[in-house]
Amino acid sequence: MKIVCIGSGNVATHIAQAFTIAGASIVQVWSKQIQHAALLANTVDAAAITDPGAIDQSADLYIIAVKDDAILEMVQALKSVKGLVVHTSGSTPIEVLSPLSSYGVLYPLQTFSKVKELDFKKIPLCIEAKDHDTLEALKNIASRLSPLVYIVNSDKRKILHLAAVFACNFVNHLYTLSEQILKDNALDFDMLRPLIMETAEKVQAELPGHVQTGPAVRKDEQTIERHLGLLQAMPQTKEIYQTLSESIKKTHQ
Amino acid sequence: MKIVCIGSGNVATHIAQAFTIAGASIVQVWSKQIQHAALLANTVDAAAITDPGAIDQSADLYIIAVKDDAILEMVQALKSVKGLVVHTSGSTPIEVLSPLSSYGVLYPLQTFSKVKELDFKKIPLCIEAKDHDTLEALKNIASRLSPLVYIVNSDKRKILHLAAVFACNFVNHLYTLSEQILKDNALDFDMLRPLIMETAEKVQAELPGHVQTGPAVRKDEQTIERHLGLLQAMPQTKEIYQTLSESIKKTHQ
Repeated sequence: MKIVCIGSGNVATHIAQAFTIAGASIVQVWSKQIQHAALLANTVDAAAITDPGAIDQSADLYIIAVKDDAILEMVQALKSVKGLVVHTSGSTPIEVLSPLSSYGVLYPLQTFSKVKELDFKKIPLCIEAKDHDTLEALKNIASRLSPLVYIVNSDKRKILHLAAVFACNFVNHLYTLSEQILKDNALDFDMLRPLIMETAEKVQAELPGHVQTGPAVRKDEQTIERHLGLLQAMPQTKEIYQTLSESIKKTHQ
Repeated sequence: MKIVCIGSGNVATHIAQAFTIAGASIVQVWSKQIQHAALLANTVDAAAITDPGAIDQSADLYIIAVKDDAILEMVQALKSVKGLVVHTSGSTPIEVLSPLSSYGVLYPLQTFSKVKELDFKKIPLCIEAKDHDTLEALKNIASRLSPLVYIVNSDKRKILHLAAVFACNFVNHLYTLSEQILKDNALDFDMLRPLIMETAEKVQAELPGHVQTGPAVRKDEQTIERHLGLLQAMPQTKEIYQTLSESIKKTHQ
């Protein structure tokens, strides 16, 4: 299988490397900046290109892994290819690809960073395609990367992406706020790391709604008041404490 | 070492079992309800008691692991013992133990549930004591359970407990909100579990402030508006989305 990778960011890097490990051949990596394209291209033995006109027209699969608002531009550049074109965006509907002859979506529900390796076999892949035959073909392709392949339409994919913002982006921000609280008091973030792991591990077997702990679910108003007092100098963090505590009380009343 | 365990909840259970594994002997487990005391006492080969007057006066260590507002009452019951008395509470100052002859605090910075086993050797133990000699003794005792022993006074322990509410209790509530969003749309929480693990694993080596991702840190207002639209029917969850997005923007401006 010959693949062209459009993009060279975190998602592009992890997908291109996973396909290479799975035995596929990345022939080209496109990026606006040649250094970026080259960086990824070198790791997967592909050619680095920056001119959309230079894209190989005979590949089997084109993976668009660029910022959401750059997808449309790449669709224009791929108008005449015959191979399957997929985008990897959680929040972009499949319709953006409708000018193409064969298309679908391959959305990996995971957070990627260039510095950290990932086992692609543990990543849920959400797929959608133009028609039934294309979906079957995409299902086969996705299965080469991970056994966790889910068929998810654009409306449900939007919901998944929204849920992921809560479970990943907002969660990381709460880690950041706890980091700030510790730092302001000369305490080391290392002390919280085991707690963070255990909190995530706990919901791998349980539903989070069943394992809520802490002052808000216990309706321990004394502790809540003491905590709000400690946050006097951090009004925004205090507001988050109040909003989340109210929401916990309502959810578990 | 002879230990009396005051309390039979999650913290009491994990600490008593960890001390047993470390070779200490739990002689008694006290609880208001005999069934609760017996449940833990049976697993560590101790006697179950409910009468504070029946507490063994000759133990080396008394561990108070009851609800915060029940600590004072237990202090009264332990007034005449000569052994070291510790409480395990994050938010209770050491002064509550001052009527006793030898006292300290042993606060395990972790979330405990009865159903899930834990490796105590990975739990940070925050200790504080009446005086220097007692602190040295408590340090030796704590080191039998975990190499991660930190000396933390009552003011800093309060701060740690506050940070833990953000990194654990509030994080679990965000998991719960994502669970609700998925459930309302007939999507399986299983799909988010790998993302939740990876988000926690990422900050084991990095600081969370350095690895923030998502629409708010990208200032991607279009996606934020679409997400708020999807949350129309969940006003409280929508408010949390807005408050956290604002805080992310401010933190990373």
